[in-house]
Amino acid sequence: MKKTITFIACMLFCIASFAQQALWGRSNLVSPEIHDNNTVTFRLSAPKAVKVQLTGDFIANGVADLKEGKDGVWEFTTPEPLEPELYSYAFIVDGLRMLDPSNVFLNRDVNTIVNIFIIGGGQGDLYKVNNVPHGTVSKVWYDSKVLEKKRRMTVYTPAGYETSGKRYPVFYLLHGSGGDEEAWMDLGRTAQIMDNLIAQGKAQPMIVVMTNGNGAREATPSHSSEGMKQPDNRTARGKAGAFEESFPEIVNFIDKNYRTIKKKSGRAIAGLSMGGGHTLQISKEYPDMFDYVGLFSSSVRMSSNNAASPVYENILEKLKVQFAKKPKLYWIAIGKDDFLYKANAEFRKVLDENGLKYEYFENGDGHIWRNWRIYLSMFAPKLFK
Amino acid sequence: MKKTITFIACMLFCIASFAQQALWGRSNLVSPEIHDNNTVTFRLSAPKAVKVQLTGDFIANGVADLKEGKDGVWEFTTPEPLEPELYSYAFIVDGLRMLDPSNVFLNRDVNTIVNIFIIGGGQGDLYKVNNVPHGTVSKVWYDSKVLEKKRRMTVYTPAGYETSGKRYPVFYLLHGSGGDEEAWMDLGRTAQIMDNLIAQGKAQPMIVVMTNGNGAREATPSHSSEGMKQPDNRTARGKAGAFEESFPEIVNFIDKNYRTIKKKSGRAIAGLSMGGGHTLQISKEYPDMFDYVGLFSSSVRMSSNNAASPVYENILEKLKVQFAKKPKLYWIAIGKDDFLYKANAEFRKVLDENGLKYEYFENGDGHIWRNWRIYLSMFAPKLFK
Repeated sequence: MKKTITFIACMLFCIASFAQQALWGRSNLVSPEIHDNNTVTFRLSAPKAVKVQLTGDFIANGVADLKEGKDGVWEFTTPEPLEPELYSYAFIVDGLRMLDPSNVFLNRDVNTIVNIFIIGGGQGDLYKVNNVPHGTVSKVWYDSKVLEKKRRMTVYTPAGYETSGKRYPVFYLLHGSGGDEEAWMDLGRTAQIMDNLIAQGKAQPMIVVMTNGNGAREATPSHSSEGMKQPDNRTARGKAGAFEESFPEIVNFIDKNYRTIKKKSGRAIAGLSMGGGHTLQISKEYPDMFDYVGLFSSSVRMSSNNAASPVYENILEKLKVQFAKKPKLYWIAIGKDDFLYKANAEFRKVLDENGLKYEYFENGDGHIWRNWRIYLSMFAPKLFK
Repeated sequence: MKKTITFIACMLFCIASFAQQALWGRSNLVSPEIHDNNTVTFRLSAPKAVKVQLTGDFIANGVADLKEGKDGVWEFTTPEPLEPELYSYAFIVDGLRMLDPSNVFLNRDVNTIVNIFIIGGGQGDLYKVNNVPHGTVSKVWYDSKVLEKKRRMTVYTPAGYETSGKRYPVFYLLHGSGGDEEAWMDLGRTAQIMDNLIAQGKAQPMIVVMTNGNGAREATPSHSSEGMKQPDNRTARGKAGAFEESFPEIVNFIDKNYRTIKKKSGRAIAGLSMGGGHTLQISKEYPDMFDYVGLFSSSVRMSSNNAASPVYENILEKLKVQFAKKPKLYWIAIGKDDFLYKANAEFRKVLDENGLKYEYFENGDGHIWRNWRIYLSMFAPKLFK
């Protein structure tokens, strides 16, 4: 019977087959093919195409041409081995962007879907699922009175949480503009990074809470009662300062529903871009809440003129109060090519002038997930020690 | 600052932008556009294309032609309103299948990625995220001694589980060949169906456990330590009967880690296709474990000749033992066009001849997720009452 089903299933597959039978199709091409020396070959069957290109974050000029071979199969191999990393790409066929039909592994970056692959070794191994104990990843809903919505978050609990009976510290990890409660998990590889760092003894077992920082939204668009609308970061943020004001609700919810260490020394907060801005505002607004603060490529805002929310008033004065309470870590990281580099330099200058102590890390590249994964894998080991 | 960031972000977007800055792009087209009368318009910008088609499970002949309008934008509107349902589609541009760049909502069906949209009303409303209390969806790992692997499962706990202190019945829900622990959640809309049925008072609050039935696999390919390999249902199943033999491990794990009702009357099991076959075998192999059994479009196997595993020996005798213990429900469902229809008719004949009582439901269509969502939404309300 098993053989019969397999045979019928393979026969059934064609483009139109999903009208009557489920899909079991398989591309005959291997793409991407990662060679032993870490060069990578990409292949696409496109017999009618005139021009096939590859775009990806590993291509120096942004776009590379594929060459047509036998049977209309186009191919491109990277001239050099790729460094260990999670990479993204797509094809461009006669000007039209399309995904690789031979690769089902995707990430959504705001409104753009990209194919992904991982080159292992070094930093890349942190992003892989390895044969180590795995934490649980949950999509959890809470009621926000401040934002007047049921709202969704992602919660990582470390391996052993369910049966250990222990209390754990909590790391709140915030996404950027256009992101949502899925971003750190999918693009940021948080579960893999935490599983691996904890298994290696480099990070303490901790709960990681990834909220949705878009105050006007319930959830990522596929899980919102507003329906499947395309992500729109122009309208997602909602009332200025409202998400930051609502943050104690989230901390209270987590403290009520999980076995947490309910004090400043058991809490960390970090975020990227807009989420770094949220981190700055929330941590100074509630100076007794977090002992560890991380700003990754952050949208830093110091101006208090005509502030749109009380949260954005008297920022320097509030920062002085926060730093007087001696947080164990205030960590700022940014890439040299980031469009927020200058704003961050100005922010650090203000901190310096006022004797507010922080740690600073600067590396290459710009406002990209490659950097945010690096910052997470550097920041998490500094927590709760 | 916020305005500046938005402005810069929009400027930054181009196909090659992900080399240095994150993506914020937005398609200017609306596709699909669901009109008030439930006709749907699909649009694709493809100025260089010669022919653009649409393939989807709502198109009678499988493929429809789009027409080119202004500025190279191709368009197709369904001639009739669509019935409430979750639908899948893709474009075909000069023979090349591609996704809709204006729609980030996708499902993976084995090796094929499809765009999705939902027409609400009636059955379609069960598949939507509505403004009702939401359960928690967790990706959880357990250690299988029988299969010698860390293995991943999806667990749905109903709204209120975390704080109610109550015990809950458990429904084990198994996927088909080519699927994995994500299939019922993504293609089957299990969280939405359960949230909605429970909120309407039609189903009891229950835990739903969606295992990975591929005995040779740890997890869905994106979350396996074997690396990101394309799904291959030819090698996934592993040793015959091993997954079925390992099932008590899963039940014990759930009973240990969740507040469950640890007896036959508190347990249900159902599956589709291969998972229906698993359900048949597991429920008869452990006749004191489940009071509710559901076979959806099932791979039914009665032959005991040269059985590849003890699990597949003496099936009829074991079924007689199971039925003598009077399970509260044995439910069989299949579509008239299913390629397993005949096999199911033969299976039912055997049950009839031996006086083994079951309930039977037959509808239209074939071996497709539309049917499996319908069967889940019919079966769940019959449980634990």
